[in-house]
Amino acid sequence: MHLFYQPDSVNLLSEDDSRHAVKTLRLQAGESIAVTDGHGNRHLAVITQADARRCAFRVTDTITTPPRSFSVRICVAPTKNIDRIEWFVEKAVEVGIERISFFFGQHSERRVVKLERIEKIAVAAMKQSLQSYLPQLDDAVSYTELLKTVVDGERFLAHLPTDEPPLHLVQAAKPGGQYTVLIGPEGDFSATEIQQAIADGFSMITLGPTRLRTETAALTACQMLNFLNL
Amino acid sequence: MHLFYQPDSVNLLSEDDSRHAVKTLRLQAGESIAVTDGHGNRHLAVITQADARRCAFRVTDTITTPPRSFSVRICVAPTKNIDRIEWFVEKAVEVGIERISFFFGQHSERRVVKLERIEKIAVAAMKQSLQSYLPQLDDAVSYTELLKTVVDGERFLAHLPTDEPPLHLVQAAKPGGQYTVLIGPEGDFSATEIQQAIADGFSMITLGPTRLRTETAALTACQMLNFLNL
Repeated sequence: MHLFYQPDSVNLLSEDDSRHAVKTLRLQAGESIAVTDGHGNRHLAVITQADARRCAFRVTDTITTPPRSFSVRICVAPTKNIDRIEWFVEKAVEVGIERISFFFGQHSERRVVKLERIEKIAVAAMKQSLQSYLPQLDDAVSYTELLKTVVDGERFLAHLPTDEPPLHLVQAAKPGGQYTVLIGPEGDFSATEIQQAIADGFSMITLGPTRLRTETAALTACQMLNFLNL
Repeated sequence: MHLFYQPDSVNLLSEDDSRHAVKTLRLQAGESIAVTDGHGNRHLAVITQADARRCAFRVTDTITTPPRSFSVRICVAPTKNIDRIEWFVEKAVEVGIERISFFFGQHSERRVVKLERIEKIAVAAMKQSLQSYLPQLDDAVSYTELLKTVVDGERFLAHLPTDEPPLHLVQAAKPGGQYTVLIGPEGDFSATEIQQAIADGFSMITLGPTRLRTETAALTACQMLNFLNL
C-alpha cells in the first residue's frame, strides 16, 4: 500500500502527495492508502476524492507505534559538499533516529543548510522505510547556541582517533539512554570548543580505529547507539 | 603526511598519484610521503625524483598493520542508480571491510558495475581514512556463480522484515568469524534464490525493524559485524 505523509489533523493529502497519488500513481476514489503523521500514527484510509491538488481521504483505522525505549540525537556540522549531509539524513532516518541538529563551529566552512530540502529528504526516507516517526530537524545555529539546547541525557563528543583514544561510544553509552552526540566539521572541533563541551558535561568518545568523514561518523554514531539497544 | 597507493613492489607512484603529488600538492625531492600497498604495509618514504608522471621515492621505514581478527565480505546486487552502490563502497571502506562482491539475481535490474571506477572509490576511501588495507573487489557474476565462491565461514542472507522475523545478524553471528552476507537487489531475492542459499548453508537474518534500501542494508550489515567485534 502507498504511504503518504500528513502531519496535520486534516483528511487531505499535501499538494505534492495529492499530485503523486492522483497523477503519478493514478489512484482513484475508493482505493486504500496509508497516511502517517510522522508522530507515530499510521492511518489506514480510503480515498474519497481523487483531486490532484487536494486529495481527500477517510480514515478507517489507525496503527500507533510507541516511541523507541531510547532516543538518538546527532548534532552535526554541515559538510562543504552538502550532498554528504543529505546522504547522512536519508540513511539516519532509514536506520532510525529521533533528532538531527545542525551547527557551525570555529572550523566550519559552511554555516547554512536548506532545512526545507533536508525535511523533504527525511520525509521520503521515512516513507521509503515504512516508518511512522519523522525525526525533529533543527536549523543550523552556532556551537554555543547548540550546547544550550542540550539539557539532559547522555552527552558525547566524537573525536578523531588519537594516540590515547578515549572510550568507544558503545562502551561509554548505557542502553536505554537519551543520547546526544556531537560530530565536528571537516576541520574538527577547536580546542576551545572541546573544553566548552567538557564543561557542559560531554564525554569524549571514539567511533573506532579509522578516520571517518563527518557524515560517516554521524551515521556510525547513530548505528552504534541503535545496535547498543537491540 | 600525504598518503599514496602503490600495490606493486616498485618505488614509483602511479601516474595519477605522481601528477597529484607533483602538480597539485607541489611536493619536491626530499619531502616525506607515506605509501600504502593496500595489503597492510605503509611505507614512510622520501621523494627522490619529483616527476609528474613517474614520481620516485625511497622507503625509509615500513609500518605493518596485522589483519583484523575477523573478516567481513558483503555480496550485494548493484542498484539501479549506481551512485548508491558507489556510496556504499566508500562508506564500507571507511568503516572497515575485507571483501565486496557484486552479483545479479533474478530480480536485478542492473547486471554490471564498472569495477575500475569502484576500485578508484575504494582506493580514495582507504587513503582518506588512513588505512593500509584495500578490500578485495569482485566483478559482478550471476547469483549461482557467486554462491560457488563462498566456501567457508559464517553465511547469512539478509531478508526484508516479515511477520516472523529471523534472528538479527548480531544475534546469529559469532565474534571472530569469517562472515559472508548476501544483500539482495531492490526487487529482493526470489524464492528459488533463497532456497539455493539455504541449501548452501546460509542462515536467514534480519538487519532490524525498518525496511532498508539495498545500499543501506549492505552498509548496516558491515557496521553490525564490526560492532560485534569491538
